[in-house]
Amino acid sequence: METKHHYISDEQGSIDDFMDINMSSHHHHRCVATSSEISIAMEVHKVVPPPPTSTLHKLKARLKETFFPDDPLRQFKGKSTRTKLILFFQYIFPILQWGPNYSFKLFKSDIIAGLTIASLAIPQGISYAKLASLPPIVGLYSSFVPPLVYAALGSSRHLAVGPVSIASLILGSMLRQEVNPSKDPILFLQLAFTSTFFAGLFQASLGILRLGFIIDFLSKATLIGFMAGAAIIVSLQQLKSLLGIVHFTKQMGLVPVLSSVFHNTHEWSWQTIIMGFCFLVLLLLARHVSIKKPRLFWVSAGAPLASVILSTVLIFAFKAQNHGISIIGKLEEGLNPPSWNMLHFQGHYLGLVMKTGLVTGIISLTEGIAVGRTFAALKDYQVDGNKEMMAIGLMNMVGSSTSCYVTTGAFSRSAVNHNAGAKTAFSNIVMSVTVMVTLLFLMPLFHYTPNVVLGAIIVTAVIGLIDVPAAYLIWKIDKFDFVVCLCAFFGVLFISVQGGLAIAVGISIFKILLQITRPKTVMLGNIPGTNIYRNLSHYKDAKEIPGFLILGIEAPVNFSNTTYLNERISRWIEECELEKEVKKQSDLQFVILDMSAVSAIDTSGISLIKDLKKTLEKRGLEIALVNPVGEVMEKLQRANKAQDFLGMDCLFLTVGEAVASLSFKMKRGASNNV
Amino acid sequence: METKHHYISDEQGSIDDFMDINMSSHHHHRCVATSSEISIAMEVHKVVPPPPTSTLHKLKARLKETFFPDDPLRQFKGKSTRTKLILFFQYIFPILQWGPNYSFKLFKSDIIAGLTIASLAIPQGISYAKLASLPPIVGLYSSFVPPLVYAALGSSRHLAVGPVSIASLILGSMLRQEVNPSKDPILFLQLAFTSTFFAGLFQASLGILRLGFIIDFLSKATLIGFMAGAAIIVSLQQLKSLLGIVHFTKQMGLVPVLSSVFHNTHEWSWQTIIMGFCFLVLLLLARHVSIKKPRLFWVSAGAPLASVILSTVLIFAFKAQNHGISIIGKLEEGLNPPSWNMLHFQGHYLGLVMKTGLVTGIISLTEGIAVGRTFAALKDYQVDGNKEMMAIGLMNMVGSSTSCYVTTGAFSRSAVNHNAGAKTAFSNIVMSVTVMVTLLFLMPLFHYTPNVVLGAIIVTAVIGLIDVPAAYLIWKIDKFDFVVCLCAFFGVLFISVQGGLAIAVGISIFKILLQITRPKTVMLGNIPGTNIYRNLSHYKDAKEIPGFLILGIEAPVNFSNTTYLNERISRWIEECELEKEVKKQSDLQFVILDMSAVSAIDTSGISLIKDLKKTLEKRGLEIALVNPVGEVMEKLQRANKAQDFLGMDCLFLTVGEAVASLSFKMKRGASNNV
Repeated sequence: METKHHYISDEQGSIDDFMDINMSSHHHHRCVATSSEISIAMEVHKVVPPPPTSTLHKLKARLKETFFPDDPLRQFKGKSTRTKLILFFQYIFPILQWGPNYSFKLFKSDIIAGLTIASLAIPQGISYAKLASLPPIVGLYSSFVPPLVYAALGSSRHLAVGPVSIASLILGSMLRQEVNPSKDPILFLQLAFTSTFFAGLFQASLGILRLGFIIDFLSKATLIGFMAGAAIIVSLQQLKSLLGIVHFTKQMGLVPVLSSVFHNTHEWSWQTIIMGFCFLVLLLLARHVSIKKPRLFWVSAGAPLASVILSTVLIFAFKAQNHGISIIGKLEEGLNPPSWNMLHFQGHYLGLVMKTGLVTGIISLTEGIAVGRTFAALKDYQVDGNKEMMAIGLMNMVGSSTSCYVTTGAFSRSAVNHNAGAKTAFSNIVMSVTVMVTLLFLMPLFHYTPNVVLGAIIVTAVIGLIDVPAAYLIWKIDKFDFVVCLCAFFGVLFISVQGGLAIAVGISIFKILLQITRPKTVMLGNIPGTNIYRNLSHYKDAKEIPGFLILGIEAPVNFSNTTYLNERISRWIEECELEKEVKKQSDLQFVILDMSAVSAIDTSGISLIKDLKKTLEKRGLEIALVNPVGEVMEKLQRANKAQDFLGMDCLFLTVGEAVASLSFKMKRGASNNV
Repeated sequence: METKHHYISDEQGSIDDFMDINMSSHHHHRCVATSSEISIAMEVHKVVPPPPTSTLHKLKARLKETFFPDDPLRQFKGKSTRTKLILFFQYIFPILQWGPNYSFKLFKSDIIAGLTIASLAIPQGISYAKLASLPPIVGLYSSFVPPLVYAALGSSRHLAVGPVSIASLILGSMLRQEVNPSKDPILFLQLAFTSTFFAGLFQASLGILRLGFIIDFLSKATLIGFMAGAAIIVSLQQLKSLLGIVHFTKQMGLVPVLSSVFHNTHEWSWQTIIMGFCFLVLLLLARHVSIKKPRLFWVSAGAPLASVILSTVLIFAFKAQNHGISIIGKLEEGLNPPSWNMLHFQGHYLGLVMKTGLVTGIISLTEGIAVGRTFAALKDYQVDGNKEMMAIGLMNMVGSSTSCYVTTGAFSRSAVNHNAGAKTAFSNIVMSVTVMVTLLFLMPLFHYTPNVVLGAIIVTAVIGLIDVPAAYLIWKIDKFDFVVCLCAFFGVLFISVQGGLAIAVGISIFKILLQITRPKTVMLGNIPGTNIYRNLSHYKDAKEIPGFLILGIEAPVNFSNTTYLNERISRWIEECELEKEVKKQSDLQFVILDMSAVSAIDTSGISLIKDLKKTLEKRGLEIALVNPVGEVMEKLQRANKAQDFLGMDCLFLTVGEAVASLSFKMKRGASNNV
């Protein structure tokens, strides 16, 4: 084990000597650690510029990576025109993919799942429409048309489409800022439909322009904080129906709602409170059962409809509407009336509806895509983000002209759909047909449904959005992400729903910019017995090399960080020189910059390297660059061609090789001086 | 050379065999290349988490790196209280540093330089004040007080302080949007002083809050484009005096100015044009001489004053003011009157002056810092950015209460100062005294100075801001930076001075975000005969390893890119599998992610790795992570503690070691199956 074999060539003696000296102090250590040791050969390799490519070619490659990272045309390659056409139609209408192979077995599963989500969709539809200050029936309309559109266009098999709580909340609150829904119901409805149209247009455009990455800027941490905050805001709004208050604030914040609740204690109705409390307990119990035993999913899935039926019967039997319990009242029968004549693309409110469409569009898209991806990953199939955006967008555009408001894939209903055994998007069709039957024949039955039960249904639905374990996990893993999460949460509670979201996204982006503006520079050392160089403060057994300062730069070098890097590297050098003086080690002679992690550079970065080389030369130090990646190497070379500043002898492929050949040079220089 | 020696341990046989097989095909190649070859030992090293540090400690370190990268208290360490006090006062007043050692030799140099820049500062001061629509004398006031303040506080030895063209242009154009300087001169002056105060306050705050990195976001490319555009805008404004037009547009853009020039051809005055043309040629010739022979710096430095004197004498002699040549007119004698009573911090125009202060403050700060750094680098001394910001800010705050408008270190005058041999900031004091003498006694002499000569002086001064070679170099090195440069240039010309700047900064930041959102993933291969792994498309001699897909990720992994990375890695795997199928190579078995360049990770990134591992396992592939850096390793470990998803056997220190041990595993697995 102790014998060493060196291939000694004419020039190599000194390097070998150095390596021996350098390693001998750790020799004992190495022998202990090396149970598996193999010998490989090392040589000094040249750093070459990457093969030349034209600017146009690079631009094309960059654009492809930016907009088509999934290479959607991949499947068309090398196919016949007919196959291409079929694949194209299958891409547009995924129903053509699974439709032809549809079997009775799948049908059976889908029909059960479809009926289950319908029983959830009907009460939730009515409730969420009320949350958005829209007539309850609009919620049912929105559970009829959009699922049909999605079944034809969507690529997720488990998404249950319909109105969702957070988008309803935002739509209602943003429109209410300018229009009073009770004073001006027609205008409010028009604005809601127009907002839905813009939401759909925006969603579809994101998909077509392949800008889907915009929704990626809502990080998981942001969403967890945001959803929890929104769930609390939604629940607080339900205090109106749960307590039977008549005069309730129009604002959404925690403070105004609570003050409104406690300033109107005289309006509290004990009958409503008792009824609400009982049904809330019932629904939460049902939810708890289904969480504990996922096989009993139908308990929580059926509970809302059961509650609606039971409460309606109770009200009807006891004529409780005369005892302070408010009821829905008369609902129109019949299918969705057309509403394209209600879309207004001009006038005073255009800005408002565009803004509302943008915010609700992004939020509902985020929910829909996230839900689709979650279940696709669970069942191991692919969901194409950009395709989904087009499907959801088109669904909302169609919806806006058939009296529907913003819809997307709802998390809770999709989970029920999945647990109930849905196999394809056909379950959405089943749900849609069930809602249609309800709209045609069963609407009078909801006349006596009490609002308090709808409130309890909403609270039970949104309580699942508060994910404390996920927030705790974020706290455990990444404190900064937790701060982002908290900002979203408190922002939603105390500022506004959109405000909280904007703050959280702003902080997230600021963090990215800060990472670039203040990149980490780490001092590398040699791991004894190897030619591996790693962070000295991370790997405690790594050792400094006398005479060398080896720095790793861990970010692209560009205009935003060149000043910082210049200052920071000077400080490293000064600290290093001071330390070497104190420890009476040999003087610093070489500064090696490991550029492996510098993924890009710009003209300011090139200037930095030029300046560094000049400054270090004045101090009598030599600089070496290790492993510049393709793009960096190319720009260095081009800059070198214009103004010769960097010799090729400054470039090395690995830190080990740089240290070996520079030590050799140092030794030779020293012996020449003698 | 051909003999190979392996240290074979019990378990090692298979790895050695593999390495042999793997290398044998390139054996010949290696023998040709290896003129210098040494053998070192290789072992499989553990990836360890970094030593534990508390969150508070990490937060402190992060804050220090963000706000105090230069560690300004470093010099105070371990000194006595008295020394600390001296150092502190020397930090605040750098004049205390160089003052005591001031010698007659330095004084001689400084006095020549000071007189030279004064001869430039007097005509430029008058001209720039006119550019800002302020009374000409304000330009001289601004060349008297601020240089004195800077001489005491500033750390640059070559900065020549005074009004500058671009800041004057912006100040004038922003204020003119709301107030007409000819109709309401007092109000305009008040707003200019108040804007100056806010500019100074803003500059000083940036320095005190150590937010100086904000000016780093004006990249070199942005500045080159911006300066060239602004120079053209400034020159166009001079067409008014150069052509003798009386009714000139108030707008700044290229189009309105040119249309104003050609719609007022009847106002053109041939006397003015001839005089302007002659002096412009004279000044440009002088500039050309000084550029060709830097020793003749005094030619261009003295030319403006000479032109002013010559033209004034000519006008006076020929009574040319009666022949259509406009002159400055009567100027007040006397020093700066106090102006703190003219600062207004309330009322209708507060927003305007704050905005104007912000924009002119940032622009002039950028120029001042850049000039200071340039000459500091040339003469090899340090300029502390944050300290300079405080000095420039305080200078402007003092200036605003002594009838001065925004001043900073001017590029052209500082260059003259440097060439004239200035050694310390004392040259600023000399200049200031010269201006004082002018203000006290020589003002009547400027009565007959023609405006056309002032216009010619401005054009000659700003023409140096158009740096075509630098723009060409940017084009050569980095096409994207060139686009940013062009955006700034055309934005300034066709939109507005601030608009062009905002667009260029926006694009620069967008590029950084895009680099993070779409990080590069590269396929690595082995460089034959080594354990080095590099980008296959960069190093053409690198070879793929059968059964392995080795990917390098070149950016921090966070919420903004996890979706992309997930899709992109899936595509890499699919493409790789397809290729291996076509080439009939052995099946893909391992995916190795080289994380060396992943400088940070967040909770979304951790989820990505979790998801990837799950997805790959379903496909029968194994994942390995190579060299996660300290922070990444720490978070992986914490996530692993919460939900065990990654075995320690997935982590390797180098790609070489990962390949070696996984191949060994693969072989053992294969032999077990037999």
